[in-house]
Amino acid sequence: MKPTQNRPTITAFTNSPDRGRGLARDFRVRWAFEEIEMPYETKLVTFAEMKQPDYVALQPFSQIPAFQEDDLTIFESGAIILHVAEHDPRLIPQDPKEKAKAITWMFASLNTVEPPIVERSFHTLFDKDKSYYEDRLKVLDERVHTRLNQLSARLGNKEWLEDNFTAGDLLMVTVLRRLDGSSILTHHPKLEAYIARAEARPAYQRAFAAQLKVFNDQQIKN
Amino acid sequence: MKPTQNRPTITAFTNSPDRGRGLARDFRVRWAFEEIEMPYETKLVTFAEMKQPDYVALQPFSQIPAFQEDDLTIFESGAIILHVAEHDPRLIPQDPKEKAKAITWMFASLNTVEPPIVERSFHTLFDKDKSYYEDRLKVLDERVHTRLNQLSARLGNKEWLEDNFTAGDLLMVTVLRRLDGSSILTHHPKLEAYIARAEARPAYQRAFAAQLKVFNDQQIKN
Repeated sequence: MKPTQNRPTITAFTNSPDRGRGLARDFRVRWAFEEIEMPYETKLVTFAEMKQPDYVALQPFSQIPAFQEDDLTIFESGAIILHVAEHDPRLIPQDPKEKAKAITWMFASLNTVEPPIVERSFHTLFDKDKSYYEDRLKVLDERVHTRLNQLSARLGNKEWLEDNFTAGDLLMVTVLRRLDGSSILTHHPKLEAYIARAEARPAYQRAFAAQLKVFNDQQIKN
Repeated sequence: MKPTQNRPTITAFTNSPDRGRGLARDFRVRWAFEEIEMPYETKLVTFAEMKQPDYVALQPFSQIPAFQEDDLTIFESGAIILHVAEHDPRLIPQDPKEKAKAITWMFASLNTVEPPIVERSFHTLFDKDKSYYEDRLKVLDERVHTRLNQLSARLGNKEWLEDNFTAGDLLMVTVLRRLDGSSILTHHPKLEAYIARAEARPAYQRAFAAQLKVFNDQQIKN
């Protein structure tokens, strides 16, 4: 195990808006660290701190997580996971073709499946009082269902998207979990089972407990 | 040069809705191929063909581009570019830290900057007749400006996002170009200059000519 001072550090919300349900983007990186058994540190930041120049120097879009190790600073959960796990077959296959397939699912999670899910959640969070709320929700639900139907068809009865669990499954599951609290996933039983298989992984559970502890500790303080 | 039968093949629209302006996602991959001087083939597909089972077997979300080489099939422009360019310093630095920074910008382009731009373009394409069109356009414009202000601040007076042109710049420029036709970029002169530098690259111009030729050839046929 590396000495503490050389552990990689990621930033996370001091007060996560998800109330510790593992939906913030630091969770993805925590889970990846746990899968490859890499110790890490967390630096908590408030929304106000994320707008300050010293944080913007780390993360130009004022988002979490930012990753720091020695003199390297990077951001974007997908890029961080690829950087820390690229040479670890537990998340990224080392055969070049299998690696390319795992990375395909990483990008598909973040660029094809996530955008309509995030757009739907923005709508339910910010537009509830709008006259067009229900009409537009139908359109957004339909966009999400289209992607989930396509994903479910490809997954079929397989355990994971490729032969073994990869960083592509890790990201896909975290993206799908953003639908928690809607009834959308109940229409996609294969995806519900896929998420449940991922949630049963010990690494997932350790990461979930770690991020929930931050929320609970903060509740005690306040 | 490899023999033709072993060239990688990407799929592209038979009739691109952008009318050959280089905004479809095959353009990103064409440009990457040109930067690393890798010959490639194109297989054109119609929207109807993209929904057929044999295409869905290649690309589960019925999108372009899908990439095939020998027995490997992958998709997602980001994943394809990373696969073909990973070992080519003209797009991906070979030093692990510099590589991680370039990949950070690839993910930032596709997961942080592109989603609000795509959402805005969906709105201008599909919601023009809605009573809330103007109100919502203001909200979406604001979301895009926020990201562009942050990106512009980070770019500053540098030529590229890191020391040299990388696949991160390539993707970022293609994402920003999706704002063509709006006046949004005129408020961000540093980004306009950044796009212009990219468009001046010979590889960009070869890729642009290749995708425009598909559109023009199709116009002659019809």
